[in-house]
Amino acid sequence: MITLYDFDSKAGRPWNVSVWKARYSLNFKNLPYKTVWIEFPDVEPTMKKLGALPTGTRKNGTPFYTLPAIHDDSTGAIIADSAVIAEYLDKTYPTPTQLIPSGTHALQTAFRELVDSKATPLVSLVVPDAVTKTMNPPSAEYMARVFATAVSNAASMSEETRVAEWEKAEEVLGSVKTLMKPEDRWVMGDAISFADFVVAAMLIMAKTVYGKESEEWTRMMNWHDGRWDRMMTDLEKYTAVH
Amino acid sequence: MITLYDFDSKAGRPWNVSVWKARYSLNFKNLPYKTVWIEFPDVEPTMKKLGALPTGTRKNGTPFYTLPAIHDDSTGAIIADSAVIAEYLDKTYPTPTQLIPSGTHALQTAFRELVDSKATPLVSLVVPDAVTKTMNPPSAEYMARVFATAVSNAASMSEETRVAEWEKAEEVLGSVKTLMKPEDRWVMGDAISFADFVVAAMLIMAKTVYGKESEEWTRMMNWHDGRWDRMMTDLEKYTAVH
Repeated sequence: MITLYDFDSKAGRPWNVSVWKARYSLNFKNLPYKTVWIEFPDVEPTMKKLGALPTGTRKNGTPFYTLPAIHDDSTGAIIADSAVIAEYLDKTYPTPTQLIPSGTHALQTAFRELVDSKATPLVSLVVPDAVTKTMNPPSAEYMARVFATAVSNAASMSEETRVAEWEKAEEVLGSVKTLMKPEDRWVMGDAISFADFVVAAMLIMAKTVYGKESEEWTRMMNWHDGRWDRMMTDLEKYTAVH
Repeated sequence: MITLYDFDSKAGRPWNVSVWKARYSLNFKNLPYKTVWIEFPDVEPTMKKLGALPTGTRKNGTPFYTLPAIHDDSTGAIIADSAVIAEYLDKTYPTPTQLIPSGTHALQTAFRELVDSKATPLVSLVVPDAVTKTMNPPSAEYMARVFATAVSNAASMSEETRVAEWEKAEEVLGSVKTLMKPEDRWVMGDAISFADFVVAAMLIMAKTVYGKESEEWTRMMNWHDGRWDRMMTDLEKYTAVH
């Protein structure tokens, strides 16, 4: 059995974009797993205790730990970082489908790096709203402290600025659309791959934070002639939370 | 027979990075072609007369024409832009090998966009030197006028600044290396694709401008444990200029 470590949230509202990439991956490969929920301040001690590797380095040079992480008790492996998890799952459970098809490692990495470099307008809108709407007090207080400027900027945004920021957020998805051929259903054409989950995770984050009846979600599902609505409907079967 | 339009230069020194992507593509697919050489000021009228599409839009809204372009007299097609040329060649001449393998269109586009977004430090060093070292007077005068700031900045650069700029240029290639697995010979692992020519074109531009005996080229071939030296040696067979 695989254990997936995710950020805790108000019931049924896992919102973290990076963890969603791992959850989509596990569901896509039809692997049994159970989620362990952790509040933000407990992530670093839990990961250290588990023996997970840090996923980055803070500006002051100390190691930084974040989620997702998985513990696969059939192999003993403890893996952090959604892309590293995808590569591990492909190697350990090669059938029925590959998340990162053979030969596409560098291209998929470039895709993620490009999308991440453009995602700021969307993330800057949604994450501060996640703090107030979906997080429990320990995580909300932690995030409001660590990302104080972003959270207070978002809270004090005028309606006019907010409308302009949502137009920039639409362009994040527009830049993904531009990479693809008009007839392509998925990033790799006919086949789902990890790159699609990179895109879908940004969207499901917003769906979780605002709710599927919200004005924000309705607007997003109308972007680019409804193409993201079709994508999210097609990927619905990989969204179970175990 | 295919005609490839390239920028004219001092004998035997075609330096343009974008045209090299097309030349590598033609040689890789083993297609017969001949080059027609054009000075910079003649590109737009020549392309308009040929019926090539513009490849972009100037800040003032007018269409912008550049090279490479090909004219394939077996189909009548006139195609500009190295990536569009690669897709055309794959479609029209599918064997023996694909430049952009099926399913990788969006990923290859993301790779190019990412590399282009990082290439500025290298291009900013080499292109001004191309103006003085490899271009004939009509192109050199045109470039010195259109890119006056870049050319004069490069000319007045202190030795200390130049050393620092070359370190940034090394990082351009470092960012490509980081995308790949250590054991991967090519961007797509075992198979050459258009993405490799995107990288190789930056390097052969520098080789052409500085010469293979130059300090600059020697330094570049030592970057990252000689990995680009190995790559350029392996791709040498696709560098014929017809």
